[in-house]
Amino acid sequence: MSDSVVLSLAEADSLAREVLEAWGLAPDHAAAVAATMVAGERDGCTSHGLYRLLVATASVEKGVVNPAAVPEVSEPAPALVRVDGKGGFAQLPFSKGLPLLVEKAKAKGIAAMALNNSVHFAALWPEVEALAAEGLVALAFTPNHAWVAPAGGTKPVFGTNPLAFAWPRPGREPFVFDFATTVIARGDIELHRRAGKPVPEDWGYDAQGNPTTDAKSVLDGAMRTFGGHKGSALAAMIELIAGPLIGDMTSAQSIAVDAGRGGSPLGGELIIAIDPAGFLGDRVDEYLAHGETMFAAIEGQGARLPGTRRLAARRESLAKGLAIPAAFHAEILDLLQKGKDHVPNPPQGSRAGSNGAGDGSGGH
Amino acid sequence: MSDSVVLSLAEADSLAREVLEAWGLAPDHAAAVAATMVAGERDGCTSHGLYRLLVATASVEKGVVNPAAVPEVSEPAPALVRVDGKGGFAQLPFSKGLPLLVEKAKAKGIAAMALNNSVHFAALWPEVEALAAEGLVALAFTPNHAWVAPAGGTKPVFGTNPLAFAWPRPGREPFVFDFATTVIARGDIELHRRAGKPVPEDWGYDAQGNPTTDAKSVLDGAMRTFGGHKGSALAAMIELIAGPLIGDMTSAQSIAVDAGRGGSPLGGELIIAIDPAGFLGDRVDEYLAHGETMFAAIEGQGARLPGTRRLAARRESLAKGLAIPAAFHAEILDLLQKGKDHVPNPPQGSRAGSNGAGDGSGGH
Repeated sequence: MSDSVVLSLAEADSLAREVLEAWGLAPDHAAAVAATMVAGERDGCTSHGLYRLLVATASVEKGVVNPAAVPEVSEPAPALVRVDGKGGFAQLPFSKGLPLLVEKAKAKGIAAMALNNSVHFAALWPEVEALAAEGLVALAFTPNHAWVAPAGGTKPVFGTNPLAFAWPRPGREPFVFDFATTVIARGDIELHRRAGKPVPEDWGYDAQGNPTTDAKSVLDGAMRTFGGHKGSALAAMIELIAGPLIGDMTSAQSIAVDAGRGGSPLGGELIIAIDPAGFLGDRVDEYLAHGETMFAAIEGQGARLPGTRRLAARRESLAKGLAIPAAFHAEILDLLQKGKDHVPNPPQGSRAGSNGAGDGSGGH
Repeated sequence: MSDSVVLSLAEADSLAREVLEAWGLAPDHAAAVAATMVAGERDGCTSHGLYRLLVATASVEKGVVNPAAVPEVSEPAPALVRVDGKGGFAQLPFSKGLPLLVEKAKAKGIAAMALNNSVHFAALWPEVEALAAEGLVALAFTPNHAWVAPAGGTKPVFGTNPLAFAWPRPGREPFVFDFATTVIARGDIELHRRAGKPVPEDWGYDAQGNPTTDAKSVLDGAMRTFGGHKGSALAAMIELIAGPLIGDMTSAQSIAVDAGRGGSPLGGELIIAIDPAGFLGDRVDEYLAHGETMFAAIEGQGARLPGTRRLAARRESLAKGLAIPAAFHAEILDLLQKGKDHVPNPPQGSRAGSNGAGDGSGGH
């Protein structure tokens, strides 16, 4: 461990905020983004951890994100919340809209929130987990960039289109999953490319639509959905309900707006929250216990619940702090210094000036 | 075609209703159930078509369904509808609750309906399609009987747990899919068993938890979820949100209540309806057109949209009527006569007497 630097969660949070602020993020954005990255690092999701400081600051540098956007919360209908992110990162819009979503879900039984016009680089599980912490059941969906072919085709239409779900568990962490509707995460293909390793033939197609084992060719061509036509149907659903349904872009529109800059996807996210007390009244505990019976039936046969590895990493991190490779820690400090030396670009191409409904027509 | 009998949709509907009424179904139940079966037959889903007359009447004969249940509609929260099916078939409860679900979705932006304490034998697509016909986006979920192992395990926990989705399309049939979260439909395994054909090794396990290619062993053992741990996570979500969340049974509870009678699953269903006008206001047409662009990008590369085959069969049926194999038509007439000669059992084991929330504790 001599080439690791151990940071407490508070130290990691403070460092991440400092880097983000140095790169021009408004303090409230920096706090919201840092919290998400530290949660990822804490849970052993290093690809969604502090590594994302590089991604987020690159998005600032490329001008694809508005670092000081002021999210606008509105109520388009009695059970709906909309947060217009004004071209900033999605974390602050989520936290700005969360209290109203929770209030509406508890008042109406079910409610939904759209995050519009926001830049997405993070996993969805911290968001559904935040809703489960309020005792709610939550689903979240987001398109991203058109990198994924539909089943039966070879040309990109969908994003990796993750779906996340959280279910509150009495006296312990919620049941949470969060998965892309692709065979494999895009980051894994990127890792194969960097390592010069071939990828399995079922991961994707090259730009000509041929099967390939070359990682770069898949990145330049099209990834495949998981589970054949069923995963493809899910990916289509997520495009529709977290794109057009909420007045935001499809993955094809988002990548067209990006115009080759390689920025994080700009667009929408749909979150649905359901209050167990809505249908169950005073029988919530009784029925949550039936969920526990199901979990026991899964774990009792040696199968693992989704999220188990993440929660184990969390316990380890809470007990021992975060062990950051020394070289990566040095890279973060270097990034901090560069940020301090850096004059941010104006957020060109972000839709910072749009009002009200996300303007899905941008770039089309 | 000399060994086919061609029925118009109206004739098929009338025949189905007559059979169901002969077996003791109340006229409103018979009408709702017949409409669903004829829709399945019309769309070429013969396994969910008139064939289900045999299944439904067997459920009546076994006493697992209350043939004259009077569904009770209630409003547990401003955006929630509950229909207690009182142990009857799910079709009538759905149609009784539909107007209120539509009204709530349009008033609140999003709404959900639980069908409780109902016997399920049909596909979910007719229901989400009915919501899309009202201009709404719809999702539906239901557990059934514990026949399916979680990823990493070999013992049944989940049902085949279908998920259905519908998206309205301007001037044409909605985009609809409906799939089980298993590798293959249970009916396909049954067909292999009847034909004495081996099944692929990835379809399931025998009762000892070993891989097998014997269809009957899979039926007596456990089916597998599609898409590995992702399909398994989805199946778990569907158990939770269409079981405990709505005060109804899990698939394990449902099969325990069935107690080996081989009846159709008794339990719950969750339907979520979202009004596009909720987030989009007067821009619905503009954003639905973005959905059409996505569909064109899928079909333009030769990939097929889910539901395409079903809609083609529908057009054929509307033009030419339903061609029923003569032997099967004779079987239906025989079933009709048997029904007329039949004295229905009292609905033992159905939860016909329960009130309010479905009582998931039955049998446990």
